[in-house]
Amino acid sequence: MLDAGLLVPTAATGLYQRSGDFEDAVRAVEAWAGSLRLDAYPRRSLPPILPRADFLQTDYLRSFPDLAGIVSVFTGGDAEHRALLEDLDAGGNGSTVLEPAETVLSSAVCHSVYPTLDPAIPDEGLRLEASGFAFRHEPSLDPVRMQSFRMLEHVCVGTPAQAEAHRDVWLPRMAEGLGSLGLDVRIEAANDPFFGRVGRMLAANQQQASLKHELVVDIHDEKPTAIGSTNYHEDHFSVLFDLTTPDGNLAHSGCAAFGLERIALALLSRHGLEPGHWPTEVRRELG
Amino acid sequence: MLDAGLLVPTAATGLYQRSGDFEDAVRAVEAWAGSLRLDAYPRRSLPPILPRADFLQTDYLRSFPDLAGIVSVFTGGDAEHRALLEDLDAGGNGSTVLEPAETVLSSAVCHSVYPTLDPAIPDEGLRLEASGFAFRHEPSLDPVRMQSFRMLEHVCVGTPAQAEAHRDVWLPRMAEGLGSLGLDVRIEAANDPFFGRVGRMLAANQQQASLKHELVVDIHDEKPTAIGSTNYHEDHFSVLFDLTTPDGNLAHSGCAAFGLERIALALLSRHGLEPGHWPTEVRRELG
Repeated sequence: MLDAGLLVPTAATGLYQRSGDFEDAVRAVEAWAGSLRLDAYPRRSLPPILPRADFLQTDYLRSFPDLAGIVSVFTGGDAEHRALLEDLDAGGNGSTVLEPAETVLSSAVCHSVYPTLDPAIPDEGLRLEASGFAFRHEPSLDPVRMQSFRMLEHVCVGTPAQAEAHRDVWLPRMAEGLGSLGLDVRIEAANDPFFGRVGRMLAANQQQASLKHELVVDIHDEKPTAIGSTNYHEDHFSVLFDLTTPDGNLAHSGCAAFGLERIALALLSRHGLEPGHWPTEVRRELG
Repeated sequence: MLDAGLLVPTAATGLYQRSGDFEDAVRAVEAWAGSLRLDAYPRRSLPPILPRADFLQTDYLRSFPDLAGIVSVFTGGDAEHRALLEDLDAGGNGSTVLEPAETVLSSAVCHSVYPTLDPAIPDEGLRLEASGFAFRHEPSLDPVRMQSFRMLEHVCVGTPAQAEAHRDVWLPRMAEGLGSLGLDVRIEAANDPFFGRVGRMLAANQQQASLKHELVVDIHDEKPTAIGSTNYHEDHFSVLFDLTTPDGNLAHSGCAAFGLERIALALLSRHGLEPGHWPTEVRRELG
């Protein structure tokens, strides 16, 4: 990918600029992943940051502190600016002069959505499509593990039955859809990479309760890579943001997530580095 | 815009989620702004962050400390995680436990490009198109001033004559192009919002040397808003990243930048909130 100029490496490990061809592939995957929707529901495109207050409320820093990106800003005057410049000249990072921003980097796009919802979830449940950049601090030399990448998620908030049905519909639908792009995917029970000692228990619980599944493909025929997943959150986000179904109970939520750069990389690995020469049926499927 | 649901406000001032219709308008503007290119040159799509080392080298923190977004991450173990959680539970922001990340938020997309270029600039000069999210910490209730927004830039690095010609070609081209979208733009000499006392001198110098021009439109027929600009950087970036022309001299650089959300907002304000009902010639121009 790097040799072909599809991705341009930067001075930061795991951070790439995208060539026009790579970007076109990602956007084709994004449009395709959106088009798998079962009926008409709202789409949202999210900025790469979310409100700090919402982020802290989601408990992401408790479960995945090592992956998060926290933003600071400078709010001083001339004197503090001089102190900042002196600190930088001395090789410092200015942290003594900087203040927490109102925002942090998004870790998963659907997390930004729940705090903005009308907490009264309608009878039929609420579905929407959300797309945008996510940040994960896991610097790696492997382009499939980027620090900054895009996800498209089909989100459902509703009764437990509605949220479970969402997962049960999307899991095979994603596998079939990715298969129609010529990717040999398999469905695997999975867990999020919860941090630390307590995290290992949380991860085991999540796997045992079948809350997370991944769509896995062997990129370059060897390395198993998750290119999509479904997550059933039970009432995790509804407790935090008071999302309630008409029966007065806390809602449940779930999402079906497509990793857009990873799917593009899987396609480039499977069908070759020139999207114009991909098999006709794959190009037709991608629109 | 907010009432019509085109933009979804969040808990952070100046941070919005985009509806599908608004996003479609932004992407149409992005494709249109790219299509104004005079000949074929590479496109790059940039992630919303850039390497911290590159960012510090661009001197952005010296000139615009108040606009920047610096990223921190957690690199500790279980003990530091407990300290982080205790700090959060006590209402703290965890800053004593967090470390500087290898990345910061992008402030202007072309700044990310220069550090990645082969420093030997070819005879004919180097041109490319760069697009992506920028962050500016200037919280405002006015949707035209977003904290997180996209820019598309046509960038030139070459001899002083090539960089100046780039500006001289693009300034009328942008005005004419935006005019063909039905926007009444005027060209104004401008300056960047340099910070503090020293900054006021830098701003005056920049304006006097005619280095920056803005394409300004009255949104809602009243508020002058820059929706595009050209910047002639002289050798500012070439000194930092050793960009050299074949004659052995430092290169000069310049860019023509389109503010994608702002152009979309100007179009929505001028032609109405339903892009499907915009004048035929505007829709044809946007493709």
